[in-house]
Amino acid sequence: VLDPTLYLVTDTALSAPRRVPEVVAAAVAGGVTCVQVRDKSASRRELLALTRAVQAVLAPTPHVALIVNDAVDVALITGADGVHVGQDDLPPAEVRALIGPDRLLGFSVSDPEELAVALALPAGTLDLVGIGPVRGTPTKPDAGRPLGLGGVRELAAAVRAAGLTTVAIGGIDTGNAADVVAAGVDGVCVVSAICAAADPAAAARELRQAVERGRTAVPGR
Amino acid sequence: VLDPTLYLVTDTALSAPRRVPEVVAAAVAGGVTCVQVRDKSASRRELLALTRAVQAVLAPTPHVALIVNDAVDVALITGADGVHVGQDDLPPAEVRALIGPDRLLGFSVSDPEELAVALALPAGTLDLVGIGPVRGTPTKPDAGRPLGLGGVRELAAAVRAAGLTTVAIGGIDTGNAADVVAAGVDGVCVVSAICAAADPAAAARELRQAVERGRTAVPGR
Repeated sequence: VLDPTLYLVTDTALSAPRRVPEVVAAAVAGGVTCVQVRDKSASRRELLALTRAVQAVLAPTPHVALIVNDAVDVALITGADGVHVGQDDLPPAEVRALIGPDRLLGFSVSDPEELAVALALPAGTLDLVGIGPVRGTPTKPDAGRPLGLGGVRELAAAVRAAGLTTVAIGGIDTGNAADVVAAGVDGVCVVSAICAAADPAAAARELRQAVERGRTAVPGR
Repeated sequence: VLDPTLYLVTDTALSAPRRVPEVVAAAVAGGVTCVQVRDKSASRRELLALTRAVQAVLAPTPHVALIVNDAVDVALITGADGVHVGQDDLPPAEVRALIGPDRLLGFSVSDPEELAVALALPAGTLDLVGIGPVRGTPTKPDAGRPLGLGGVRELAAAVRAAGLTTVAIGGIDTGNAADVVAAGVDGVCVVSAICAAADPAAAARELRQAVERGRTAVPGR
């Protein structure tokens, strides 16, 4: 039940003064297909409340998966659809053991070495591999060296060859979303392109159109 | 299997340049009866590694319980003996549902209102209530107003009347540990008194002696 086409990762600070659930509601109305709740600076109790608030917003659209960043405990408590972890979070194998076989598990990689580790995990560990950053982004200053479209193409091909879903993240906006999708990913993750947009619904609509344009540019998809 | 007599809460920065597992080993040799791994600034992956390292140190002393601060996911992955949560962490009822009936669950309160909320939880939710700070402490600048010995006496009596174990925390050292125990708690939590000590084993020995002195000062215990 994961449609990675347009994958929103929330950012509490970039959403301000609007609240995250309000931005999520607008983004889903505009065409977002998956929502990851991320707030590394929130306490666990705040993150639980935020996740529940986003879950309430998504209740009428069960086809939009709810993913929790890092916080496996919060995902288990809320019954979220999945968890996404990065290189500094709990290791994917341990997370899979905790969440069971049915929930979705995503994992971020930023270079071929990290991808090789991800693809060497036992079958069934990962559902999705996030690759990035596509280009430099102020949202995540600690992200690795930008991949560029060539890097996205290379990593996406390897993920797809392994039978996993792949999304790109980091510096994606309406200007480059089509090209990123044409490079071979199943969808694009955005943070600031929606959370910091004056009109998140309109931003999501434009991004969705860009993704569809990118897809038609890829033969056989 | 929780002996709260002398309860060490680890602090990575205060332990430096020594590593936390090394300090824990010395502290247990000196008489610590329970160890809580706490590192709010560690990534989840770092916290997992730290917890496993402390667990390895505690393997020869199974009577010394291993408790994980806040990170329920890490506690579940490592099979720790329990979890301790504060007011900003996941709510105790949700944590109890996640960890099952057998693991230990502790909860921090800093005033009579927070304690009333804790004692209103369903029976079986909590095993231990931590009360504090006893006095001002640089370790946790965001802790509430110091309770003093009178506050400790009042809150400890309420916790014990509810049939739960109680420990005091915050500014406890060899100079006041006996008085704190005489005020009615089952044990004392220390952070800097051991982690920042030149000789953690000696510090633990002295604290343990102080606790025993405090116990003999309480009639009928």
